[in-house]
Amino acid sequence: MRVKGIGLKRSIFSSQLGPELDGREEVLFGWVMSVRDQGGIKFIIISDKDGIAQITVKKGEVGKRIWERAKRIREHSCIGVRGIVRKTEKAPHGAEIVPKELRVYSVPKKLPPFPLFGSSLPKLDKRLDIRAVDLRRPKAQAIFKIRGAALRAIRDYLNEEGFLEVNTPKIIASATEGGAALFPLLYYDKEAFLTQSPQLYKEQLVMAFERVFEIAPAFRAEPSKTLSHLSEFLSVDVECAFVDMDGAMEILEGLIGYVVHRVREECKEQFELLGFEPEVPSGMKRITYDEAVELARRHGVDVDWG
Amino acid sequence: MRVKGIGLKRSIFSSQLGPELDGREEVLFGWVMSVRDQGGIKFIIISDKDGIAQITVKKGEVGKRIWERAKRIREHSCIGVRGIVRKTEKAPHGAEIVPKELRVYSVPKKLPPFPLFGSSLPKLDKRLDIRAVDLRRPKAQAIFKIRGAALRAIRDYLNEEGFLEVNTPKIIASATEGGAALFPLLYYDKEAFLTQSPQLYKEQLVMAFERVFEIAPAFRAEPSKTLSHLSEFLSVDVECAFVDMDGAMEILEGLIGYVVHRVREECKEQFELLGFEPEVPSGMKRITYDEAVELARRHGVDVDWG
Repeated sequence: MRVKGIGLKRSIFSSQLGPELDGREEVLFGWVMSVRDQGGIKFIIISDKDGIAQITVKKGEVGKRIWERAKRIREHSCIGVRGIVRKTEKAPHGAEIVPKELRVYSVPKKLPPFPLFGSSLPKLDKRLDIRAVDLRRPKAQAIFKIRGAALRAIRDYLNEEGFLEVNTPKIIASATEGGAALFPLLYYDKEAFLTQSPQLYKEQLVMAFERVFEIAPAFRAEPSKTLSHLSEFLSVDVECAFVDMDGAMEILEGLIGYVVHRVREECKEQFELLGFEPEVPSGMKRITYDEAVELARRHGVDVDWG
Repeated sequence: MRVKGIGLKRSIFSSQLGPELDGREEVLFGWVMSVRDQGGIKFIIISDKDGIAQITVKKGEVGKRIWERAKRIREHSCIGVRGIVRKTEKAPHGAEIVPKELRVYSVPKKLPPFPLFGSSLPKLDKRLDIRAVDLRRPKAQAIFKIRGAALRAIRDYLNEEGFLEVNTPKIIASATEGGAALFPLLYYDKEAFLTQSPQLYKEQLVMAFERVFEIAPAFRAEPSKTLSHLSEFLSVDVECAFVDMDGAMEILEGLIGYVVHRVREECKEQFELLGFEPEVPSGMKRITYDEAVELARRHGVDVDWG
């Protein structure tokens, strides 16, 4: 089915729905999370970026065309609705939508091979097969929102401390940090590499800007297939002139404390859903390199000094 | 010369210096922008991340050791000073520092081959040879600060509008947008490519998060050596579900208007220095694809429809 345009213009998100809108006409969009069918009445729960909302379609109360359309809707359909808000204690946010216009943008040909809103989850590779749909799980949503909040908090803290955000090249002519773990690439007719770290650029930049940071992908071709290693990762890199080791640690401790504090504040709902809350670290212990090596060895990690 | 640690701990940045600190002991760091020598007195101007400050070293007023050290200092030296603030109308911020301790961390072996603070600039390639030093020019500083402020403004606007910041892979298995302009790389023993655009990932992500954005490097191996083309650039990518063409344009127009407004507010000083101020666009004109092609052709650009 080709839809020419979407035909409707959103007036509210699900989070804005409430009994105080009773009687008003509003437009919502979303993906269908569930359809509860009770013969002559259908309760359709949609999910948008903020949460969920209920659309109540009752035969006789809505036009025949809407009723026919509503019958086609099933889980993971993508729909838009223009309708009247009616307050009811039985729906999320204390209000439901009674449609005056219903648009069905897509109906899945096939449903996901596992229930998305169940308590048990299939293995990761099965979920990755349908990742876009898997990410509709409220817990996946929570993780991404916390991640976004953490990035905001990192940037706010560093900006507040006078660090300038910079962006440095990812295609480089030679290795940054000694190691051989580089991905080679063909830059037109020359060999080049993906950067492992913005270290050299940062060092140059602090000579002019004193305090800089970059949040960007970094690439390491380490010959390792463990779950604790990533070939590509988002690196938070901070560089500061005129501080010694303790000064650097103060800044990083301050950063970590602030970020944990902020995500706790901003993501209460998400942490509740995940059944987890990070602790604000206070007075982090500082250890010497010797102590770190000693500690690693005591825990059975085979590490050479140096 | 090896320095064991930096020996001092910063108490203020140059921007915090002022006559109200008269008599207080403070610690500043910076790079020397100029040394004015008047026989028994030296005026040393240092620059830190915020601006400049004056250190006044007078023979007899400071200890012999400090005087000897001050004699070694020249432009682009890197120094730290602990000293007493003395108010004076003749110095920047209405105050100077009379050193009680002076640390010289580095003295350049060679001065830059062109004056950094002159009105005329050498060619770009000459400047790039000593880019770290070239970036100490106040106009270069201004450009980077405006750039940082623009990135902050973009993120703030999009966060406020309910967009979630995401990060998608830069190493991909196949092309994103049809074109052949990909950089190939060796991902362990397989061929892979650098991403041209997060388009496909964004499309998947909106199906769960509805509104997402990414600010990240993108790579295009277009066989072009013009100044208007970059092989690697920072891409601001926004994706939004449930809007049509006009809805998308509204969001982007809002974004541009907000960013221009914010950088004007935050970077007054920088724009003044650059002799330029961006205008807040109001009521951007929307044209069709046909009109765009027609416009390009009328200006002599050879472009095929489609």
